[in-house]
Amino acid sequence: MKKIYLDHAATTPIKKAVVDAMLPYLTENFGNPSSVYQMAQVNKKAVDEAREQVAAAIGAKAQEIFFTSGGTEADNWAIKGIVEARKSKGNHIITSKVEHHAVLHTCEYLEKNGYEVTYLDVDEYGSIRIDDLKKAIKDTTILITIMYANNEIGTIMPIKEIGEVAKAHNIPFHTDAVQAIGQVKIDVNDENIDALSITAHKFNGPKGVGALYIRRGVKVSQFMHGGAQERGRRGGTENVASIVGMGVAIELAYKDFDNKIRQYTQLRDMLINGILETIPYSRLNGHLTNRLPNNVNIGFEFVEGESLLLLLDMQGICASSGSACTSGSLDPSHVLLAIGLPHEKAHGSVRFTLGAGISDADINTVLETLPAIVKRMRDMSPLYEEFLAKQ
Amino acid sequence: MKKIYLDHAATTPIKKAVVDAMLPYLTENFGNPSSVYQMAQVNKKAVDEAREQVAAAIGAKAQEIFFTSGGTEADNWAIKGIVEARKSKGNHIITSKVEHHAVLHTCEYLEKNGYEVTYLDVDEYGSIRIDDLKKAIKDTTILITIMYANNEIGTIMPIKEIGEVAKAHNIPFHTDAVQAIGQVKIDVNDENIDALSITAHKFNGPKGVGALYIRRGVKVSQFMHGGAQERGRRGGTENVASIVGMGVAIELAYKDFDNKIRQYTQLRDMLINGILETIPYSRLNGHLTNRLPNNVNIGFEFVEGESLLLLLDMQGICASSGSACTSGSLDPSHVLLAIGLPHEKAHGSVRFTLGAGISDADINTVLETLPAIVKRMRDMSPLYEEFLAKQ
Repeated sequence: MKKIYLDHAATTPIKKAVVDAMLPYLTENFGNPSSVYQMAQVNKKAVDEAREQVAAAIGAKAQEIFFTSGGTEADNWAIKGIVEARKSKGNHIITSKVEHHAVLHTCEYLEKNGYEVTYLDVDEYGSIRIDDLKKAIKDTTILITIMYANNEIGTIMPIKEIGEVAKAHNIPFHTDAVQAIGQVKIDVNDENIDALSITAHKFNGPKGVGALYIRRGVKVSQFMHGGAQERGRRGGTENVASIVGMGVAIELAYKDFDNKIRQYTQLRDMLINGILETIPYSRLNGHLTNRLPNNVNIGFEFVEGESLLLLLDMQGICASSGSACTSGSLDPSHVLLAIGLPHEKAHGSVRFTLGAGISDADINTVLETLPAIVKRMRDMSPLYEEFLAKQ
Repeated sequence: MKKIYLDHAATTPIKKAVVDAMLPYLTENFGNPSSVYQMAQVNKKAVDEAREQVAAAIGAKAQEIFFTSGGTEADNWAIKGIVEARKSKGNHIITSKVEHHAVLHTCEYLEKNGYEVTYLDVDEYGSIRIDDLKKAIKDTTILITIMYANNEIGTIMPIKEIGEVAKAHNIPFHTDAVQAIGQVKIDVNDENIDALSITAHKFNGPKGVGALYIRRGVKVSQFMHGGAQERGRRGGTENVASIVGMGVAIELAYKDFDNKIRQYTQLRDMLINGILETIPYSRLNGHLTNRLPNNVNIGFEFVEGESLLLLLDMQGICASSGSACTSGSLDPSHVLLAIGLPHEKAHGSVRFTLGAGISDADINTVLETLPAIVKRMRDMSPLYEEFLAKQ
C-alpha cells in the first residue's frame, strides 16, 4: 500500500540533494573544523557556507547564526540565555499559552527559579491580541517570546506587530519559528525579531541540527558551556554533515517558493473544504486563511483522535493528533484548550500537514477514505448515539 | 600525498558499517519516533536498539541511557542537573584542574551562580591524588566530577578509587568519559560511576550525537526543556540516524577489543620511544604506561607547537597541539600547565592520537619525517641558539 504521509509538521523526509550534500562529510571529509590542518579546514569552510545559507533565508548576517542540536536547544538557549543576561533589569517574561513545550516548559522552569511569566491568552483562532501584549508589559519585562506560527493549528501570529511593540519598549523579542520556516517568508529586520529558533528536520533537512539567530548587540548568556566553537558561544564539536544538510535544505525550501506555497495552499484548502463538506460535525481548528499553507487541523465530534489515527494508519495515511512531541500523553492539547475547545473536542482533533510530493490524488484518497472511518467510529460511540437520540 | 591522520582524539572517520546503518534513517525511514503510525515506530525501535547497544558497552541498563547532542551537552546536563537536583543538600562541587572545557567552563559558570568549586591539583602525570579528593570533601559536597581519561595527555584517572570514595560519602560521581570510551573497558557498576558522558564521533561514529548515562535513582534535573522524548527527561526530536550510528559504532569499538588495544599500545610505544630516542630535548607529557592506548603527547623544547603542526601538515601528517576545542586560542594548555610545565614548554607540545587504520608504516613515516622538521624549526629559533651557546 502506498503511504500518504501527512505529518510534515512532525518531521519531513530529507531531500535527496540534501543527503547527497551531507554524504562527503559522513565519509572522507571527517575532520574537526577546529583543527589546524588543511584536511579539517574543508569542514570549517563547509560550516561557514551553511551559516551563510541559513542567514540568507531569514535576512540575517552569517555572524548572527549559531548552530544548535535543534529547535528545542535553540528555544532553551534563547529564553534562558536572554533572561540570564538581563536579570539585573527585571524578571518578567511574556509568552503565550499556545507555545511549543520547548518554550512553555522552559518558562515554567524559570518560574520556579524566580522569574515571573505572563502567558497571554489567544483568540478563538489561536492568535494573541496585540492589546493584551501591550497591557502585559511591565518595567520588569526582559523578554517577549511568541511563536511565529503554531505547530498544531498553523495559526500565524502577528509577528511584525509584536516586533514593533517589543522594539518600542526596548524588550528583546524571540520567536520560535520552527514550524514557520520554509512555509512563510521571514525577514528578521523587517519584523524586528531579535532571536529566532529553527530546526532542519522540519524543512526536509536532517534531524539533530538547528540554529539560533541572535541579533548583533542582543546579549544572550551561554547555554552549552564548553569549547570555543561558534565563536565561543556554543561549545561542542560542530555537527558538520548535518549543518551542511541544513544549509542546502533551507536554500531549497525557499527555491521556487511562491509556486510551492500556491500549491500547498490549494491542496490545504481542498482538504479542508472536502472534509467540512462531506463529514458532519467536523470543524476547522485555527483560522481559515491566516494559517500555515501546509496545515489542516480538524475536530471531529464523537471521535477519539488517537483511534482515528490508527485506523487512518491502516489505510496508509499518516497523520497526527497534534504535536508529535507530546503524543503518547493522555492530556488534551494545550493549544486546543487555549482556543476554547472543551476536553472531548480537543481529544477528537486530527492534524494533517502537507509537504513535498503530496498530490491532488493523495488528497482525494484521504477525502475518499476519511468519511467511512469517521462514520465507523461514530457508529460505535455511545455519545454519538445519545446525541442522535436527542435530535 | 597519502594523509596520515593522527588526531583521532579530535574526531574520527565514521566506519563504513556505521554510515551504512545510518543511511536508511536518512532516506526512507524518516518518521518521528514519537508519532503513532507504524512507519514511525520503525524509528522508535531503532532508537531503542541503539540504547541497548550503548548500555551494553558500559554495563548499564538501557533505561539509564539518555541520548544527547554530544559530550558537551552530556557534561552540561550531568553537572548542572545533579547540582540543581541536590542544591538543598549543599553547594560544593569537586572537579580537577585538567578537565575538558565542557566541564571546567560549566563549573566556572556555576561558581558565578552561588556554587563553590574545588579544582583538584594533579601530579606530574596529570592524575589526581585520592588523598586530595578525600580531604576536599565537605558536608556540603553534592557532586564529584572527574574525567575518565585526559583528552590531551591521555592519563587515566583512578576511577575505581574515586568511585569508592564517592560511594562511601554518598556523593554522586560523574565522569566525562568522552576520550576513554572505546579505548578502555568501562563498567559503571564495578567502578561506582553514577553519571557518565560520551560522544559518538570519538569512536568512529557521527558527530552531533552523544549520551549521558544516569544511574537509576540518581536525581538529575532537566537541562533541555521541551517535549516528552527520552522518557520526559530530554526534549527534542530524536536524532534517529545518528543515534543508530552511535549504537553500531560503540558495538564495533568493543569488538575484538583486546587485539585492537594491543595493537594501539604497540604503535603508541613505538612512536613514543622512536621520538624520544631520535629527537633531543623532547619529553613525554603524561605517564608512560598509565595512559590511553592511542595517545602520544610530546613536548619539544625550543619549538612552537602550532608551527610544527603546519609543517607536519605539509608532509601529510595531521596532529594537534592539544584539544581541538581550544585550538586557535593563544593560551597555553591548562592541562600542561597543571602538570607543572612552564608556558614555553606547554606551547611546544604536540599530540598524536592513533585510531583504526594506522599502521607500523605510518608510524615509521612520522619517525622519519619529524626529526628534520624539529631540527629545521630549532635552527631558526633564537632561544635554541642561546641555549646552545651556553652549553
